[in-house]
Amino acid sequence: MKFAGLLLALTAAALAQSNEPRYTGNGELMRPDNYREWIFLSSGLGMTYGDGSPELRFDNVFVTPQAYKAFLQTGKWPDKTMLVLEVRSAASKGSINKGGHYQEGVQAIEVHVKDQSRPLKWTFFGFSPTAATGKPFAANSNCQTCHSQNGAVDDTFVQFYPTLLPVAKAKGTAKPGTE
Amino acid sequence: MKFAGLLLALTAAALAQSNEPRYTGNGELMRPDNYREWIFLSSGLGMTYGDGSPELRFDNVFVTPQAYKAFLQTGKWPDKTMLVLEVRSAASKGSINKGGHYQEGVQAIEVHVKDQSRPLKWTFFGFSPTAATGKPFAANSNCQTCHSQNGAVDDTFVQFYPTLLPVAKAKGTAKPGTE
Repeated sequence: MKFAGLLLALTAAALAQSNEPRYTGNGELMRPDNYREWIFLSSGLGMTYGDGSPELRFDNVFVTPQAYKAFLQTGKWPDKTMLVLEVRSAASKGSINKGGHYQEGVQAIEVHVKDQSRPLKWTFFGFSPTAATGKPFAANSNCQTCHSQNGAVDDTFVQFYPTLLPVAKAKGTAKPGTE
Repeated sequence: MKFAGLLLALTAAALAQSNEPRYTGNGELMRPDNYREWIFLSSGLGMTYGDGSPELRFDNVFVTPQAYKAFLQTGKWPDKTMLVLEVRSAASKGSINKGGHYQEGVQAIEVHVKDQSRPLKWTFFGFSPTAATGKPFAANSNCQTCHSQNGAVDDTFVQFYPTLLPVAKAKGTAKPGTE
């Protein structure tokens, strides 16, 4: 009886976490509420790609467990992959901390979706900290074009994900010149 | 048949990932190899607690899914909780990055274990990047004494884990004065 209960609980958990993108009728993405229970890929502080001065914010990146496991096996992202970029403010000298930076509240999230049923294979959706749905970025937005041109694997910045870059290199799926 | 197969696969996965601490005969902790698939709590850059100048390294913290779920429900850590502190080098200006910092290789990991069958309720174990086993820190080491004195919940720095601090406050399990 205890064993059967465990099996039922596990099955329910698996069904509840299919982690595929869901859209509203007007083409917005529904917020993936459980992304903090996905797989962490990396965190950066104040990263910039243009000539502007960096904003001191942390960027945490998470991916669905399903897509992560597929990537470890193949070096590629399956259809319906979702990555979440969570932007958090950076704090210092709170509690017993005397130097460096730690994370505080969420400022925004962006979700990067691979969905071959959409006009673009990869699409970013932007969410304010508490929004339940997010609008797609324009096809000519900086995020869309920069990721398309510079992603090490598909449109994704695997060059900055230290556990995945060696996998992509070993599987031969990183674009030529990726370091 | 397909459903039964799913149940078996889920059960096997659950058994393989019991995530309880395992020790060698001489009292060292066996490395939890799958910690990158645990729940991410936060990441800091160059965090210091003493008067020294900060080293520019990232600290990522992960906790077992079991302990995380228990904490969300109770604001407390169950026995056999393990947290992993993964220390990674900080890089800048690689690939298309122009400012700020991103993560590269692992420099060390430390595992913080709650195990009421041991002399101390919470014990740190230190691992070089590739070590299969880690030695316990001395009871009077800086990490042991500072965490014991300053942890917001038990010996853990929940004050720096932005998704858990509100839980501890709501459940009344954070030490008085925690901000």
